[in-house]
Amino acid sequence: MATQIIVKKKVRKLKNPVFLEGMPGVGNVGRIAAGFLVEKLKAEKIAELYSSYFQHVTLIHSDGTAHVIKGEFYIVKANKKNGLKRDLVIYLGDQQSELPQGTYELVHEILNFIKKLGVKELITMGGLKMDVAVEDPIVYGVASDKSVIRKYSKYPINFNSASKVGSIVGAVGLLIGYAPLYGMKGVSLLVESFGPPILPDHKGAKKLLELLQKILGVKLDLSEIAKKAKEQDILKEKIMRAGAPAETVKREKKTDIGSSSLTYIG
Amino acid sequence: MATQIIVKKKVRKLKNPVFLEGMPGVGNVGRIAAGFLVEKLKAEKIAELYSSYFQHVTLIHSDGTAHVIKGEFYIVKANKKNGLKRDLVIYLGDQQSELPQGTYELVHEILNFIKKLGVKELITMGGLKMDVAVEDPIVYGVASDKSVIRKYSKYPINFNSASKVGSIVGAVGLLIGYAPLYGMKGVSLLVESFGPPILPDHKGAKKLLELLQKILGVKLDLSEIAKKAKEQDILKEKIMRAGAPAETVKREKKTDIGSSSLTYIG
Amino acid sequence: MATQIIVKKKVRKLKNPVFLEGMPGVGNVGRIAAGFLVEKLKAEKIAELYSSYFQHVTLIHSDGTAHVIKGEFYIVKANKKNGLKRDLVIYLGDQQSELPQGTYELVHEILNFIKKLGVKELITMGGLKMDVAVEDPIVYGVASDKSVIRKYSKYPINFNSASKVGSIVGAVGLLIGYAPLYGMKGVSLLVESFGPPILPDHKGAKKLLELLQKILGVKLDLSEIAKKAKEQDILKEKIMRAGAPAETVKREKKTDIGSSSLTYIG
Amino acid sequence: MATQIIVKKKVRKLKNPVFLEGMPGVGNVGRIAAGFLVEKLKAEKIAELYSSYFQHVTLIHSDGTAHVIKGEFYIVKANKKNGLKRDLVIYLGDQQSELPQGTYELVHEILNFIKKLGVKELITMGGLKMDVAVEDPIVYGVASDKSVIRKYSKYPINFNSASKVGSIVGAVGLLIGYAPLYGMKGVSLLVESFGPPILPDHKGAKKLLELLQKILGVKLDLSEIAKKAKEQDILKEKIMRAGAPAETVKREKKTDIGSSSLTYIG
Repeated sequence: MATQIIVKKKVRKLKNPVFLEGMPGVGNVGRIAAGFLVEKLKAEKIAELYSSYFQHVTLIHSDGTAHVIKGEFYIVKANKKNGLKRDLVIYLGDQQSELPQGTYELVHEILNFIKKLGVKELITMGGLKMDVAVEDPIVYGVASDKSVIRKYSKYPINFNSASKVGSIVGAVGLLIGYAPLYGMKGVSLLVESFGPPILPDHKGAKKLLELLQKILGVKLDLSEIAKKAKEQDILKEKIMRAGAPAETVKREKKTDIGSSSLTYIG
Repeated sequence: MATQIIVKKKVRKLKNPVFLEGMPGVGNVGRIAAGFLVEKLKAEKIAELYSSYFQHVTLIHSDGTAHVIKGEFYIVKANKKNGLKRDLVIYLGDQQSELPQGTYELVHEILNFIKKLGVKELITMGGLKMDVAVEDPIVYGVASDKSVIRKYSKYPINFNSASKVGSIVGAVGLLIGYAPLYGMKGVSLLVESFGPPILPDHKGAKKLLELLQKILGVKLDLSEIAKKAKEQDILKEKIMRAGAPAETVKREKKTDIGSSSLTYIG
Repeated sequence: MATQIIVKKKVRKLKNPVFLEGMPGVGNVGRIAAGFLVEKLKAEKIAELYSSYFQHVTLIHSDGTAHVIKGEFYIVKANKKNGLKRDLVIYLGDQQSELPQGTYELVHEILNFIKKLGVKELITMGGLKMDVAVEDPIVYGVASDKSVIRKYSKYPINFNSASKVGSIVGAVGLLIGYAPLYGMKGVSLLVESFGPPILPDHKGAKKLLELLQKILGVKLDLSEIAKKAKEQDILKEKIMRAGAPAETVKREKKTDIGSSSLTYIG
Repeated sequence: MATQIIVKKKVRKLKNPVFLEGMPGVGNVGRIAAGFLVEKLKAEKIAELYSSYFQHVTLIHSDGTAHVIKGEFYIVKANKKNGLKRDLVIYLGDQQSELPQGTYELVHEILNFIKKLGVKELITMGGLKMDVAVEDPIVYGVASDKSVIRKYSKYPINFNSASKVGSIVGAVGLLIGYAPLYGMKGVSLLVESFGPPILPDHKGAKKLLELLQKILGVKLDLSEIAKKAKEQDILKEKIMRAGAPAETVKREKKTDIGSSSLTYIG
């Protein structure tokens, strides 16, 4: 089969839609932020993506039913209540492909699908792996072209990303990089994220959501995720006191974080 | 070639057929149980599946003839003698694919083929790997949806499978997970199985066959496999006395078996 | 591209042709024997096989020209001078595929091609890896079906191969195993072969050629290869005196060679 | 997607064009030389090659924009100013494929594309890895056939390449090896190159460019690259004084460099 997208619901014309992507990766920040939006905005599922590039594993839900690894496309219509200025198309993925061939295939299938929905603009989200925790993580940006950087210059996004990291691994970057081939533009938002891969980084996800509030105008109650972020800080502190090698670095010590400490983004 | 199914015999309309799958995996329980049915019910071979996702190895029969790795489809017609309430389609596989791409391809080829035979319901069988042996192995169930759990609630199947294991590796799970995409429903029956992978687990296979008797109404003489199961217990005991790390755990000690001890299903 | 066969010369009807295969493997015996036939019988090249499943390496000839890894199909017409009873189609391969997917593809492309040439019978050749050297290597046989074993029973081929080895790795076995799917029959001739993989085993190749003389009626001057086989024995002895773990085993000591010492065939 | 070439500009009939290839490899010599030509001759980009056989990584430019891994095709028209006797088609690649399947696919896509542009002759460039640095690196040649060796015999190319190395890894060799299948001829120019892979070898690239001046008649100001080559020599000396195992070998000591010291070409 390779990769197939199964449409669950026909979508009528969307209003100047923006595409948002959230897949597992560093700190799972993109996935958490996109999942938060899907849940809180009561997004409507329109399609599912299946691929033989996912692991050949079937997850088991707590009720005993099977869940194959997949990606889901959702839409959220802009309205006064949610504050959205434009319609959203959200991709929520269970997994990235470990094989480059799979990542390329997923990226092209996704771009092809959202192009048909009228998407012209993309926002992908990921974590920028840090060796030390930071109190107030910075969001770095990578853009499909310079016009995008100009457009987003009014938001707190640091486009000096190349000084921090040389490349982005996986779909987060390729979606932006390949967007122009599909007549689209886009930005990757990479939030500094520290922690063992098992620990979901709610602080980083919250940072991304705050930024999305500004960019999209969306009204979100972030108190729940703020609470989780705080709990995570306490947990991290406990782990570190128990002998972890790093501690939260305050911004004034920023010069201590060399670019060599940043090696992977997902 | 990738994967191809070669039909050996055209099948006329089957009567509300159930699909049963048996491939190698933990304790080989599914393969043993399916093979037992094929042999004892004198199932008729209707097709063979060949795939370049199998190992590039040719097995040698004891008579000096070659055997390529393949899967076989069999049918058994329901009648008074065998007690079957419905016709059976059985897939007996020599091997699973080590590559996810291969597993997905096999699963889709199989589902596509049995759909044409009119199959609407699947039963896949596998072992749930235990670190310790149990006297009376439990069969856990994973269902394609909740209606299946209700349907099978009258049988001794524990659908609290998620408390024991998080995921199923390989075709056993994917067949159930992907069944709905083909308009089918199904259940994975996972029997607790202990033992080094080399030792075929006849006790677990017998447990599955006893369950199939109840579900399918099929009349089976299990004395032969019961004997093998007993021999296996004796062998296991010998191995363990010679220094193996675990011993048969009685049900009252069940609390000793944490979910952490269950990591792989095949 | 995957795999393609480029026909260099159109072939007219062949007279009941037999297919012979020689690819690199244990002791390189199949490749040496097939290459010997191509050279000595002045076989005519009719086609070349190219595949992306070969290594991405270009060999350099001593004259500075490039040689891509490929397979070659040759034909030899039966005549009184060469003694052949039937026409030959010979496949001489530079390399086997390391990926199962590649081996399957090569095997199916080869079978498909020779089927068009009217081939109904195959002889594949390989080495059966020994841990110790034998003075007079035995040729074991694996057949596509029992009728082939009966047919070859008059030749010095031991079809009790299953007692020595459980499976054949690679194209040598798959060609025979898949032959029936193409309406063909065939035999794998596996000669006992000892020695580090780097050392080509001329003794084993000579044994195969002696057998082919009997089977095909072909007249061959084996003095050259006999000389190489003798030189190889001397070399091997030197290596072993310098501390190698094994020595040539005489047939009366055959019981020393357990089946456990035979693990790989190529 | 696998591999696709996206034409950016339709090309009118080229005048007896020669194809030049430059991809990353030993010392990056081919890539540096080809990149130098593209820049200095103000080559015009006509097409881009994208492939799922590249790494699934997106590079970040210093201005914060994304760069997907790709190959680029350029053309340079021959004129009096640049001194070219014939038009050039240049392929500048960001990356080679690590998978043989990918290398074969890239090679066939490239050959197919340049065939349509009227290319009949190829020059590929790579480094021949040395364990010791040489003061004046030799350029070795590998040709698609003997007529090419005769044609290039008037240039300082050593076609006794087989005495130095047995094979070429990657696209540099396969392009030449597969050229005849597309009705083309060609030569691989392999310059001796020493140094850790991270250090780009400007000295080797300069050697290739000097040779291209003679072959193509192209006028190039090599003073800039000559300066870099000198700086690289100084750097190398520093590294070696700090404990590196080898030192620059003068030509009269050439006999010290056995063929065993040459194992990889890229």
